[in-house]
This record gives sequence, structure tokens and C-alpha cells, in this order.
Amino acid sequence: MGKSATPGAGEELPAIRTGAEYIESLRGRKLRVFLLGEEVEEPVDHPIIRPSINAVAATYDLAANDPELASAMSPYTGERINRFLHVAESAEDLVMQNKMQRRLGQLTGTCFQRCVGMDALNALHSVTFDIDAANDTGYHARFKNFVAHMQRRGFVIGGAMTDVKGDRSKAPHEQDDPDLYVHVSKRDDEGVYIRGAKAHQTGCINSHWLIVMPTLRLGENDRDYAIVAALPVDAEGITYIYGRQSCDTRALEDGDIDAGNAQFSGQEAMVVFDDVFIPWEHVFMDGEVEFAAPLVERFTCYHRRSYVCKSGVGDALIGAAATIAEYNGVERASHIKDKLVEMAHLNETIYSTGISSSHEAEQMKSGVYICNDLLANVCKHHVTKIPYEIGRLAQDLAGGIMVTAPSQKDLEHPEIGELVRKYLKGKTDVSTEDRLRIVRLIENMTLGRNAVGYLTESMHGAGSPQAQRIQIARQMQLEKKKSLAKKLAGIDGGKNAEHD
Amino acid sequence: MGKSATPGAGEELPAIRTGAEYIESLRGRKLRVFLLGEEVEEPVDHPIIRPSINAVAATYDLAANDPELASAMSPYTGERINRFLHVAESAEDLVMQNKMQRRLGQLTGTCFQRCVGMDALNALHSVTFDIDAANDTGYHARFKNFVAHMQRRGFVIGGAMTDVKGDRSKAPHEQDDPDLYVHVSKRDDEGVYIRGAKAHQTGCINSHWLIVMPTLRLGENDRDYAIVAALPVDAEGITYIYGRQSCDTRALEDGDIDAGNAQFSGQEAMVVFDDVFIPWEHVFMDGEVEFAAPLVERFTCYHRRSYVCKSGVGDALIGAAATIAEYNGVERASHIKDKLVEMAHLNETIYSTGISSSHEAEQMKSGVYICNDLLANVCKHHVTKIPYEIGRLAQDLAGGIMVTAPSQKDLEHPEIGELVRKYLKGKTDVSTEDRLRIVRLIENMTLGRNAVGYLTESMHGAGSPQAQRIQIARQMQLEKKKSLAKKLAGIDGGKNAEHD
Amino acid sequence: MGKSATPGAGEELPAIRTGAEYIESLRGRKLRVFLLGEEVEEPVDHPIIRPSINAVAATYDLAANDPELASAMSPYTGERINRFLHVAESAEDLVMQNKMQRRLGQLTGTCFQRCVGMDALNALHSVTFDIDAANDTGYHARFKNFVAHMQRRGFVIGGAMTDVKGDRSKAPHEQDDPDLYVHVSKRDDEGVYIRGAKAHQTGCINSHWLIVMPTLRLGENDRDYAIVAALPVDAEGITYIYGRQSCDTRALEDGDIDAGNAQFSGQEAMVVFDDVFIPWEHVFMDGEVEFAAPLVERFTCYHRRSYVCKSGVGDALIGAAATIAEYNGVERASHIKDKLVEMAHLNETIYSTGISSSHEAEQMKSGVYICNDLLANVCKHHVTKIPYEIGRLAQDLAGGIMVTAPSQKDLEHPEIGELVRKYLKGKTDVSTEDRLRIVRLIENMTLGRNAVGYLTESMHGAGSPQAQRIQIARQMQLEKKKSLAKKLAGIDGGKNAEHD
Amino acid sequence: MGKSATPGAGEELPAIRTGAEYIESLRGRKLRVFLLGEEVEEPVDHPIIRPSINAVAATYDLAANDPELASAMSPYTGERINRFLHVAESAEDLVMQNKMQRRLGQLTGTCFQRCVGMDALNALHSVTFDIDAANDTGYHARFKNFVAHMQRRGFVIGGAMTDVKGDRSKAPHEQDDPDLYVHVSKRDDEGVYIRGAKAHQTGCINSHWLIVMPTLRLGENDRDYAIVAALPVDAEGITYIYGRQSCDTRALEDGDIDAGNAQFSGQEAMVVFDDVFIPWEHVFMDGEVEFAAPLVERFTCYHRRSYVCKSGVGDALIGAAATIAEYNGVERASHIKDKLVEMAHLNETIYSTGISSSHEAEQMKSGVYICNDLLANVCKHHVTKIPYEIGRLAQDLAGGIMVTAPSQKDLEHPEIGELVRKYLKGKTDVSTEDRLRIVRLIENMTLGRNAVGYLTESMHGAGSPQAQRIQIARQMQLEKKKSLAKKLAGIDGGKNAEHD
Repeated sequence: MGKSATPGAGEELPAIRTGAEYIESLRGRKLRVFLLGEEVEEPVDHPIIRPSINAVAATYDLAANDPELASAMSPYTGERINRFLHVAESAEDLVMQNKMQRRLGQLTGTCFQRCVGMDALNALHSVTFDIDAANDTGYHARFKNFVAHMQRRGFVIGGAMTDVKGDRSKAPHEQDDPDLYVHVSKRDDEGVYIRGAKAHQTGCINSHWLIVMPTLRLGENDRDYAIVAALPVDAEGITYIYGRQSCDTRALEDGDIDAGNAQFSGQEAMVVFDDVFIPWEHVFMDGEVEFAAPLVERFTCYHRRSYVCKSGVGDALIGAAATIAEYNGVERASHIKDKLVEMAHLNETIYSTGISSSHEAEQMKSGVYICNDLLANVCKHHVTKIPYEIGRLAQDLAGGIMVTAPSQKDLEHPEIGELVRKYLKGKTDVSTEDRLRIVRLIENMTLGRNAVGYLTESMHGAGSPQAQRIQIARQMQLEKKKSLAKKLAGIDGGKNAEHD
Repeated sequence: MGKSATPGAGEELPAIRTGAEYIESLRGRKLRVFLLGEEVEEPVDHPIIRPSINAVAATYDLAANDPELASAMSPYTGERINRFLHVAESAEDLVMQNKMQRRLGQLTGTCFQRCVGMDALNALHSVTFDIDAANDTGYHARFKNFVAHMQRRGFVIGGAMTDVKGDRSKAPHEQDDPDLYVHVSKRDDEGVYIRGAKAHQTGCINSHWLIVMPTLRLGENDRDYAIVAALPVDAEGITYIYGRQSCDTRALEDGDIDAGNAQFSGQEAMVVFDDVFIPWEHVFMDGEVEFAAPLVERFTCYHRRSYVCKSGVGDALIGAAATIAEYNGVERASHIKDKLVEMAHLNETIYSTGISSSHEAEQMKSGVYICNDLLANVCKHHVTKIPYEIGRLAQDLAGGIMVTAPSQKDLEHPEIGELVRKYLKGKTDVSTEDRLRIVRLIENMTLGRNAVGYLTESMHGAGSPQAQRIQIARQMQLEKKKSLAKKLAGIDGGKNAEHD
Repeated sequence: MGKSATPGAGEELPAIRTGAEYIESLRGRKLRVFLLGEEVEEPVDHPIIRPSINAVAATYDLAANDPELASAMSPYTGERINRFLHVAESAEDLVMQNKMQRRLGQLTGTCFQRCVGMDALNALHSVTFDIDAANDTGYHARFKNFVAHMQRRGFVIGGAMTDVKGDRSKAPHEQDDPDLYVHVSKRDDEGVYIRGAKAHQTGCINSHWLIVMPTLRLGENDRDYAIVAALPVDAEGITYIYGRQSCDTRALEDGDIDAGNAQFSGQEAMVVFDDVFIPWEHVFMDGEVEFAAPLVERFTCYHRRSYVCKSGVGDALIGAAATIAEYNGVERASHIKDKLVEMAHLNETIYSTGISSSHEAEQMKSGVYICNDLLANVCKHHVTKIPYEIGRLAQDLAGGIMVTAPSQKDLEHPEIGELVRKYLKGKTDVSTEDRLRIVRLIENMTLGRNAVGYLTESMHGAGSPQAQRIQIARQMQLEKKKSLAKKLAGIDGGKNAEHD
Repeated sequence: MGKSATPGAGEELPAIRTGAEYIESLRGRKLRVFLLGEEVEEPVDHPIIRPSINAVAATYDLAANDPELASAMSPYTGERINRFLHVAESAEDLVMQNKMQRRLGQLTGTCFQRCVGMDALNALHSVTFDIDAANDTGYHARFKNFVAHMQRRGFVIGGAMTDVKGDRSKAPHEQDDPDLYVHVSKRDDEGVYIRGAKAHQTGCINSHWLIVMPTLRLGENDRDYAIVAALPVDAEGITYIYGRQSCDTRALEDGDIDAGNAQFSGQEAMVVFDDVFIPWEHVFMDGEVEFAAPLVERFTCYHRRSYVCKSGVGDALIGAAATIAEYNGVERASHIKDKLVEMAHLNETIYSTGISSSHEAEQMKSGVYICNDLLANVCKHHVTKIPYEIGRLAQDLAGGIMVTAPSQKDLEHPEIGELVRKYLKGKTDVSTEDRLRIVRLIENMTLGRNAVGYLTESMHGAGSPQAQRIQIARQMQLEKKKSLAKKLAGIDGGKNAEHD
């Protein structure tokens, strides 16, 4: 990407419109990426990385193929843009985000990595507005310029929030090592320099730009940690260290069966900033510590509801379970059908709670819409449990073969391949290979590479379960509920419940 | 009500607008009602029946106090009407039904009995239209006339669907006794005569009119059972037999503490039709057996989502649990707070799944909107479990005193009342009486009279759990899901998943 | 009972052997019992109380009919005694207690009220021994004398532990009112006088003797609260105030159908001690505050495992659910069978965890065996959830009729009885009456009178859920588990796990 | 092993006593093993296979280090033998099996592969006895000779039951390919020849001998499939095809961190029999189709209870979760402690249900004891769910780092290793390496190689969930339960419940 990634130089270039264009746009960037102890020459061509790039590419192709679902008209550019770059102008815009997320989960069976950026844009719209209103700063205009540029180029934005955190009982400025939270290490007339590291960075290497944000409520002494700014992924001084995923090296093997889902995967990496420069025009908060908490809360509000994507992944897994049941010839057994119903019931619960959060949106002063916080937390909290139960049921239907089947190399072996085909045959009209493909997909989604996204990321992404419980506690209106009860029980304190 | 209940005679009368007017409207009807083996003189004044009337009255008062929430403009009368009588003209109308239902659950802590009628009106709007389209009949116009009359008078309509069913393995016409499903026993120029009984009739005695409908898919030989018609509750030949409820006779005792919720309750009765006459103008289906299944499906689609009301009842129970925790001085214990969060999380799940079903509504040919069937079933299916778990947690917080506390008579006894007050004191500033009131409310909602509505009716109303599972199975698009999986697994059969 | 209850006077009398003898033994006692605001003349003849007496009587009849199961040879008297009075001499004795408890749950469908006394005897055996060993007191010999006397007479002993507690954040001596925990109000040469109240006293009125015990860990300043002593139920100065139970007054109605289980129920009352005298020979702890915690812990260890009785009650409820499924003609539906399997699976989980706790018993220094504490808590903790789920499933199978069926009086009404019989008929060869009987039994066990024992007492008896979690936390050997993990992970700290 | 594996030649050799001796005993066998498409030279030295051999070796070392737990006195040889080769002479023997299994689960964190053989020996003891009694055959004596020989040599026995099954709706003799179930392909004076394949063969390559058994109820036409026989693992004509496991190739990488548990794993392979000869002295059933079902039922009865081992694995995983909580500095948070309690509660439920099944054992006619079938099924059924929930909670405590942490190679990289150590530091006194080791262990047990044993094998081993539900349905005594209910409800049919 290089020069072309910087707004000044890039404005004349056309927007990226298709998955293929997107993949080309990633070539030739000067990224410093380490994976399994080696520096990666070109991420686009690395067999472990490529499936995650394909998943992002699907977000472009969907917008091209189904523009109503996955694109929107931008009030900034007056043009049709990818919905991931759109700032929500209505509750319906938020609902449409959810529908797009579910569809992409269905199509990729994994994490397509663009929701953090989308949710960061929406959260920053109101936060920059509110900072300006309080402090007479100029962040909101800067921010809208930035958004318009991103829209014109059709870029992928990665939202970089989660710091590595060190000792969780200490504030950022209290840590032994000041770098355990990303902070401004220097300021000059041109801009700021940042230092530190962000962990669990979904899709960072597949992005064009990153937006750095604080990860928690900050205090008076954490002023240098209150930094929000955008920078191109190939800015000087950044190192990316790729995270291992279960079964990641199957992508290095010949063949595509054992990978389960050879085409798509997620991406998680640690991003290290070694005094990286950012010009002022891309700084959207610098020192306003009192706005760190609102930013985190609004971002997580959007983002917890974005986990509706997992209902799309769930659709694919339910389909895989139904397919293996059919291949094994047991799809009519009542207990099999009942388990599929249970999976669907649970899966739609994720979808419903997300949709209702989006539907019950409210407009902020800046004009952007924000989804309902209580219901967003209910949605995400279900996501910390339901995919595990759907995964368990999928393993029930898959049968033991999921963890005892030989490799693709055995299947294709000149001598023993015949034995594998003879003995692992299921229903008459289904090939052993297809049977193995579908059990490998279930393995991929429940133990393997995409279990990372479907299970563990569902647990911890956008906040671990307890974070949602804390937020539900805040939003549950317990005093109002007590008044309702007292009134019904004939206790005086409850008299006014009706008028709340 | 008497004569005034019939359209012809009643048009000149004004609409019922308040709870008080509603209660007066019920006096003096010639109903044949049996309760605990005795005929009831005047239901309005019967201490066991009255709380259920109060609950219906709350639906009038809410419309008066919060018209945006609980009323709507009628396109038929051009006037503001109670929302329970409104035919949905948009998805938002359906969403507003849910919000009104939750509010009424909060205010009454029980079943307020008007949803069946509301959902029947909405279902019949499209069904009568579709019958006419297929058969060139005139049901739809008749039906709209009827609705307009109900709206002008502000009446309560009870929907009478569930037959007593006899041997569940036989069709209606195959039963030993033909009356085990309600059917037309005679037709003449004036109208039809019906015979049979409807069980579990929520709020029937508190209604002004009933709409009789078939309860299941019918076959060619069940033609006489394919009857939909409206009749006033005091039509000649009807007998009502009141159902027992747990702790029902506490309403006969002095005092209001032991009842738990002395003011409000639900109502269930069996309605027996002994050749009851209905004029043709109130007949909306007669013999069109092929429309029985669509009617049942559309009605249950609306009605399963109407169980959002239980989230309102749940609000009150969560409030009661929080209150007793406070009275016991343990409200800050982390496990107490965590249980309240769990209750809220579950309760909002009911709400969310209902709201999303309403939001994802579609318009029928007749113009009425119908909510999403898959999500309506997901909602109701949660309702068959979640209230039980919320109830269990409420009992956890209530403590053993809920089932060992002495009676109000002991509390007020000249000799031992002092002992009760001395020894059952909780926190310093809370009276023993208030502590008892709140545990009695929890008893009422988890074991007592309103447990009938909060638990058992949640299980079986609008169809028992298995009925939802069957409907989820039908709606879950398993073939599409299989295609998604096959495509991800690289199996040829999945090639077209993207274009579904 | 009067004089005969005191050891001195009673030795010559023969033991109570049968249920009938037991019931006779209760007549003519001078008890001060209040129920629904009125003093009870003769508890044996009170229709609300009698079913609870019948349940205790079943413990005598079972010992007579199945001596191997429900009796044992006493080393104190050399005679065969009721197992409820036996001090465990082996792990097998504890296992046999569980088997007896399950059987009695099956036979009565409720709480038979003798476990607290049995568990108190077993706990006091080692505690009195240990106090003597520490302090050179003579409690153990006194205690064994007392036990021998109880065995010779075949008495029922109620264990009185749970104080009313007032403000739960304060120690006994810190309460505003010193009587909120039972304490010694006076001592003289003859004995002690006690004052206070015990709440939730299971079967107290149906007992011959009570053993008063402290309810929690005591400190130096709580010395007067460290009292363990036995006294006859009709000692002067005691008042009993009966607790209300859901549907309790159905026992006052004519007929036996609506009660559901007309023969058996549990009993809970508050016992108030107004300076009641106890001679020294029946005092087993007085001021040894450091032994209050061990007593509570050992008692709850035995008692939490005693909740195996609920698996017996569960057997009856599962049977009721299977019966109504049969009566409704749906017993072959796969979802019905599956729900019955789930109920059985859960029910046997209660049984298994109890049995394993008893089996893994250890011998105390006094010679008595005590069950495994960790597993006892696991057992009881399941009991706080499983009966609720079994109850929910039973309501699922029962159908809505459970809460809408008319009364027995309607069934037997000369006019409408016929309608009830006609319309509430199920399968051809099953009478409407039998169908109603079985749904009323399910109502009794899930909402009605015996839901008190099956549900709420399962929640709070022997300690509320959080009490078990605290005890599990203490017993779960977390440091050993960490060592196991570290060793497997190759961390040095784990080196010694193998040798723990 | 070669010749030495055959009884005749091997009698003079001493028993294998230690893990080291065991590992040596495996060298030099002429096995035909394929793994990832290549024939394995020497399994003992293959990095993917070796951890599974280490796990079996632990069963020898435990017997040496804790003989009371893991060995027993053989009535056949008069010597102390490994408990895995012992035929249960009492309920206590069965209980001790469970205690040994839990301990080995703790020590290895995986499947140690010897239970199938142990359970097969115990099942065959009574089945061969019963065949002889019915048919006057001589199987039982042969079988005891075989057992004695195994004991004298201290061999590992693999039980080979699960056929590959083909079309599950057809009986063995009805399959398109007769080899889809193992069968006798030829008989002569010397013995039988078998043909077919067994799938999911736990530890087969690590065994010295295999016992082949039928996998389901057989009919008259399946006579050739009714074959039970023992043969050395290196008999001519056998091919082993190794099953892939999640993350299996991490064992091929340098370093021991990323493997999570580098020392131990399970083993699953497919065993193909190509007309393999077995002499008559090792044939224990041949054609007695009516004894196939009893053999399967008795074997699964023992084996479903053997899943108590998972509570040992669970101990290690709970320890890992507690360790990472400590390393992250959050071990005192109430929600963390509560999750650990929940994990322990669930884990002990597995243990308790197994122990109670063993404790409630009965003696068969042959003298061997068999555990309680109903409770064994309850135990295994919990195992199909509880490890998944414990695994989910472990992932909750582990944090997102479990799936985003860089590789060991990155940690040790000269350039970026420093960044990894700096930024992934947790609590002050814990090294980044140790933190990574413990999250990799949790990954290993919940997504990686030992998730195969802890999760998927827990689901399908000894029968998939539905198999247990069918067996629970058979054993739950529904008619007795119905009688209990009817008696309580006052229905005549229930009269005799007391006497069952």
C-alpha cells in the first residue's frame, strides 16, 4: 500500500470495489510481520495468512453482489460505499449491519474482521462531537474528513483497542513498564508519537488503516494514554506478531480436506508500536481522559451487538451437522431432528437479541444512532455460551470419526487409500471424501482453526462474560423493578411505580 | 351487558374508556358461571373472580394514561381505540403491542387476558381475506364490520380456540363423542348453532364477546368443525366452569397479605356451548377446512410472540427478589447481585426475541402485518423455560420463610402477633409486615395463584413446547444451511449456497 | 405425651413400633400450637396437620415392613431399633440411610421429617466426644444415655437448629434483640433455661423430643448461645406457630381429589422458647463456642446428603408424569419419552451423589462414621436445581389442565358434573376422575402443598445454594489441582504434584 | 514383541513392571502403521505417537508407586498384578478401578487407553461362563487361561469393538460390503480367519494384544459376525491407520510449549484385518449370536462408568484455570472463584455417579462383579456434557490470549522474543513463558490434541449420548414409578406400589 495509504497522496485513486481488487491492494506494503518465528515476505501469499484475507475479501464481494444488504449511500461522499464504512443514520442502518454480519458469517464460516472498524467509526462520531462540545476542540471535523477519505478509497479499517494490560490491578500510569498501555511518547508541531502494544488485534494485517483507542476508563494521571488516532498499517515503527491458532499449520499441508474450511479463516495478531508518528490531522482525542470511558462504553455497545455474526457462522455449522447426519443415514431419527431444532433455537436467540438491540436504537447529539446497551449486552452474553452448546451438539451429530479419521494423505495413498475409502464409506450415494470433508469442517469449527473465532473469540471478544454482567447490572433498572413489586405487594414504597 | 352486547342494539352506546367503566359494563349479564361447585350470582363481586377483572381493567386505564403506548388510531372508525382492538398496519404496530404487553405485565404481575382476542383479530383479517379470494365469499367485509363495532364500543374479545380434544390420536370427526371439538350442530337461514366445549379459556368470563375458532388442521370430513364465529358471552346456552388455581381460596380469607398479590390475577375457565345460536353476520368461516391450518398458524404466530408479557411479569418478580434481598440485608453479596443479573439477562431474552419477531414482520395481502414466525416460536419456546428459572432464583433469594411464614391472622393475633413481629423481623427499618408481604408476593408468583400464569400458562399457552419445536423445524431452512456447509467444505453440492 | 416423654418416667414403657402406635402416642400432649390464627385443640385431628403426621407414621410402618431397610441393631440397647435413631457404625449404615430415605420419599411424596433428628444424633456423637476430649467434660456419656432412652421408646426427635437470625450482618450477641438467636437466659443447679425462637422447624409438632443446637460459628462473646440440649416437645413455655403452605386449606375442603396428595404432607413451624427449663442431664454443650462450627459443619455434612430423599419424591413425580402421558394417549411420542428419560437422569444424579458421599465415609474418633463432605455438598447443590427442572418437565407433560381443571365439587355437582366428565375425558378406558387425580397430584408437587417440600425446602433446607458453594470451595483442593496442571504444562512449580 | 507376544512362547518371560520396561517391550514389533500417509518405521520413536505411549506407561508407574491403588492380587496367578488386568471380585474392586482412573487422568491429562481392555476382560468373564452354561462349550476355561497369561506377562490389552458400520440402517449381513463388520471369513482345524475393520481404536498400537468383539445385537443371519477372539497386535494381516487429532503436528515442531501437554496424549486408529488367523485357544465366542447383545450391554455397563477418568482430567483442567487466574492476578474476584466452584461441582458429579454405580454392584453367576447399569449410564451421560462446560469455563478464565498468543519460536526469537516477553507479561513474579505454558495447556485440553479425549471422546466413547438415553429408558422402572404416583393420587391401579 505504501504511499497510497496516506490520504494526501491517495485521494485521486478509485475505491476498492471487489474482493480481487482488495487482495491486490494489500500487495507490496512494507509490513514487518512475524509468524512462527519468521518474518513474512508477502502476507498475501502466505498460506496461513491468505484464508483470513479471503474472508475480508468476501465483504467486498457481498457489497458488489448484494448492494442493498452490504452497502449504503454516504452523506459525506454522496456515493454508494461499503456498509462497513457507513455511519448509522437510523435504527434501520444498525439492523442492516446485523443482517450483513449474519450473511457474511454464513458465507465464510469465520470472522471476517471488519466489525471493529465499523463499530469504532460509529462510536467516534458521537465521542468526537461530544469532546468538541465540552472543550471547543476540532476533532469532529477532522474525524469526518478521515471517514470521507476512507469511504472514497474503500479501505479496511482495523480498530485497535485492547492493550496488553500487564498487572490488571493497576492503572496504566501505575504499571512497572509504562508501555503496557499504548501512550503518547512525544508530541511536536507535526503530530504525536505513540508507543506500546495492542493484543488480540483482529484482522490488523489485513487492514489498510488502524484506529488506536484507549481500552478502559482513565484517570487524571493517565493523560498520555488518552489517545485516539488513525494511522496506515505500514507506518514506520510497527511490528506485527501473528497469533497461533489451533491447527494453523494444516494450511501448510498439501490438499484442502484436512483444513476443514480451506478458504476462510480469522486473524489475530499483536501490534507493537515503537514510537510511531501520527500527524495531528489524524488525532481524534489527545488527553481528554474523561471521554475514555464513554468511548469504550459506546464502542462495546455497538460491538457486543455485532456478535450477531456468530449466528451466521452457526448457520453453517448447523448445516454441517445436518449434512453429516444425512451422510450417516440417521437424519430421520427423532433425537437427531430434535438436536438440530435446539441448535436453531439457540442460534436464532443470538440473532434476535442483536436485532432487538439495533431496533431499539437512539439518536445521539452528533446525529449517529446507537443501539440499545442492555440488549447488546444480553446478545453478547448469549454469545459466550450458545456457540459452545451448538458446537457440542454438532460434535454429537458428527460422530467419533471427527477425531479419528485418517488424513487426506492416507485417503489418497496408493496402497491404503483404498482401505480408507472402503471402510469409511457411509450412505451409498455419498463418497468417503465428501463424508470426510464435512467432518473436517465440523472439526475446523469446534476444535480447529475457526473454533478460535466461533468459540474463544465469542467468549472474549468485545469483553469477557463478566464485563457483560457488570453492564447488565448497571442497565437493569433495579429500583424501578422494586417499585413494581412493592406496589403489587401492597407495600407503601411501591406507590409510584406506575408513574416511572 | 345483556342486550347491549349485540351489535345491532349497541351501536349508539359510547365506548368503554376506563377500568371503572369496564367493570361496570360487566355487571348484570346473565352468565351461567360455576365456581367450586356453586353457581356464581355476580362475577364482578366474587372475591375469587374480581382480581382477574381488575387485571383486564388495567388495560383500559393504561390506554387512558398512556395513549401512545396502549391505544391507536383506527382506520375503521377514525377514532382512537384501545390497542388490543387494533389491526396492525405496520411492523411498528406489532412492536408497540409488545411494549404494551410488557408494561401491563409489570403493572398487574399476572395475565391481563386480552392478547388472545387481539391476536385472533389480526389473524382473521388475513384469513377472511384469503378465503374470500379463493372462494368468492364475503367473510372479510363481515369481519371488518364486526371489528369496527367492537372498536366503537371498546369491548373485550376473548378468543376461543382450544378444544377439549378427547383422544389426541383421532381427528375431530373420528372421536367417540362428536362434541369433543366445537362444531356446527345445525344451520338455518338465520345462522348456525354450535356445540362442544373450549378448555383453558383465558379471561372468557371477563370478555364481552367471544370468537370461536378451530384448534387444529382439519380434513375433508371435519367440515362442520371448520367454524369461526363471534358471539356475546351471554348468549343463550353457554355454561362457564371456572378452573381451580393454586391458593385460589386465599382470596376468600380476610386480609390481603397472604394472597400475595391481592389485586390482580388471571382467569381460566371451560366454556360449554349447548347448541348456541350465531347469526350469519357473525360467521367468518363455515366449512372451509383448508383454511383451518392457516388460521391456527397465523394466530399462534402472533400469539407466541405475545408472551413478551411475561417479561413484564418477570420485571415485577425480579423486583420482588431484589426487595427481599434488601430487607434481609444481603443485597450487596456478590452471589445475590449475580443472581439478579442472571434473572434480568433471561428476562430480556424473552423481550428481545419477541421484539425481533415483531420487527421482522411482513405484510399480508389483506394489508395486515404479521410477525416473523420462526422468531415468534423462539420467543415462546424460551417462555416455556425462562420463567421457571427466574422463579427458582426468586425462591433462592426469598429464603425458606416463603414457605414457613405464619398467616396474616397469626401476625394480627392479639397474643401471638407480638411473637411473630418480634421473631420475623429482618433489617432494622423494615417492618415484619412488609417483609411478609414481599415473600407472599414471591410465593404468589412461583407457587401460588399467579404462578398459574407465570409458569404453567407460560408452558402451555399458545402451544406446548413441542409445538414450537415442530414449527422451528419447519422454519429453520435446513437445506439452505446444508448448502452453506457444503460450500465451505468444498463439496460440490454446496456450490449454489451463495445465490440462495 | 406429657410425663411419659421424660426419660426417668418413661423407661418402663415399650417402644413405639407402628404408625398407628405412633399416631396414638401424639394424642393428649399439652402443646400450644397456633395455626391460621387459632389455637389447635388436638393436632392429631386437625385436617391440615394430620397429613404431616401420616408421613412420619410411614417411617414406623416401613421399619416394621422392611426391617433390613429401615431398622438396625443398636449397640446401646441390644435391640432392633428404627434406623432414624441409629448412630452409624459403618459407611454401609450411611448408605442404608439413603436407601431408606429414597423409599420413604417414594411412599409419601413429601418430607417425612425425621432426617434432621437422625443427622443431629450422628453429628453430636462425635462433637460431644471431642468436647470431652478437649475439656474433660462429661457430655458424651450423657448424650449416649439420652440416645439409648430414645431408642428404647422409639421416639421421634426433631433437630432445632435454624435461628430466626434478625440482621444477618451481626453476630448473635450484637443483635438489637438478644433473643433473635436461642440462648441460655438463666442457669441454676437443676439445669438451664433457654429463650429465643427457631424458624423453619420441620416436623417439630410431630416429634416427641427436640434437640436445640446453635446455627452458626460462634465467637467468644456468644457464649450463652453455645447451647445444645434436648427437651420434650411439651415442655412448659414452648409455643408453636404453624407455617402456611401453598394450598394448605384444601385439606379443609370436602373430598380428597383437589388436595392432590390427601394423605401426606410436610410440616414447618416456628418454635418459640420462653425461658424453657432443661435439666443438666439433657445438656450436651454449654458455652463451648469453639465447637459450634464443627457441630454445624458435621450436621450439614450428614444432612445435605440426606436430601437423597428428594430422589424418592422425584420417583413419584416422574411416575405421575408418565401416568398423565398415558392417560392423554401420548406416551409413545418420542419427545414425551425423552422428557421422562431426562427426568430420570436428573433424579438418579441426586441419588448417586448422595450414595457416593455416604460410601466415601470416614470414621471419627468417637467411632461414628461421617459421610464425605465435598460430595454431600455436591448432592445438596444438585437438589437446589434438579427438582425444579423435574417439576418443570412434569408440568410440560401434565398439560394446561393442571391449572384450569374445575374442582372436585364441580365434578360431583348434580348438574354440571356430567359436563365435566363428558368434556375432560382423555383416553377411552380412563375415567375423568382418575385423570383429574393425577393432574392434581402434579399440581400438589409442583405448585401446591408438597411443592413446599419438593422445591422450596430443596432450595433452602440444610443450607441455601450459596452455603454449598462456599463449602465446595473449601473442599475442592485447588492447590493440588494447580500442581497437577503445572506439572503437565512443564512449569517448575508443578513438579511435586505426583506425590501429593 | 513378535513371537514373545504369543502365550506359548512367552510364558517364561517376566512381567512388565515399569513404564520404562513397557516402552521397551513395544520396540521391534512388526506392525504395519500408517500416519499422515507414510508408513511408520518404529512407533515408539515417532514424535506424534510417543506421547500416547507415555500415557500408557503411566499406568505401569502408578502400579509400581501406589500398588494399593493400581494393582491387585490375582486369584489366577497368586501374584500382584496391574489392576487393569484384574477381574473384579467385589464392589470395592470396581470402586478402586474408578479411583485409579481418576488418578491417571490427573497425572496424564489425557486418555491412558487401558480401560477398554479392562472392561472387556470383566465383561467376558461372565459372558463366556454364560455361553458355556447354555451351550456346553468350553470358552470360560480358555478365557481364564488367556487372562492368566496376560497377567503373568503384564500385557496391555486393547478391546476392539466398534465396527465401521457402513449403512447404519442395515444389519451386518445386509450390508453391500460384508466386511463393514468384522467377521469370520474362514474356519479350519487350527482356528478362524477374520476380516473387516474396527474404527476409533483407542490405544491399539500401544497394546500387546487385541480382543475383537461384536459391536451390536446380532440376528440369526449374522452368525459369522458373532466372533470374540484375542490376537497379538502384530499378527499377520493387520494394518493400522492412525487418526488425525487437532494440532497433532505440533509434536513435530521444536520446543515443548506450543504442544501444551508435550508429554502425554491419547491414540485413536483404524485397525484393518485382512483374513487374520486366530487359533482356537484364543476364540471365546464363535457364532453364538444370542450372546452378542449381553456382551455389548455388560461391556458398556462397565465402560460407561469408566469415564470417571474424565474427572481426573477435569482436575488438571480446573487446576490450569485456577493457575491462569492467579497468573493474571484475578484469582480473588468473586466471579472467578464462583466459576472454579462450578467446575468442581460438575467434575465431582462425574466422579460421584461413577462411584455409586461401582458401589451398587452385583455379582454375576461366574463370580465377577458388575456395576449398576442405570447409574453407569447416568455417569456417562453426564460425561457427554460436563467436560464441555468445564472446558468453556476454563476458556473463560484463560482469556483471549489462549488463541492469540505467538508461537514458542517467536518467544525465543532473537529479535522479537524480547517484545513478546515484554508485552505478554502478567503478574510480576510470573514469567511470560510460564504464562504461555499454562494457556497452551488449556488450549491443548479444550481445542487441541487432548480436547479429542476430554471432549469428543467423552461424547462418543462407550456410546453416543442417545445410547445412554435408550439404556436409561430401559432401566428406569417406569411402571413402578407409575404405581407410586397412582397410590398417592388415590387411584386404584396404584394399590400395590408398596410391595414392589
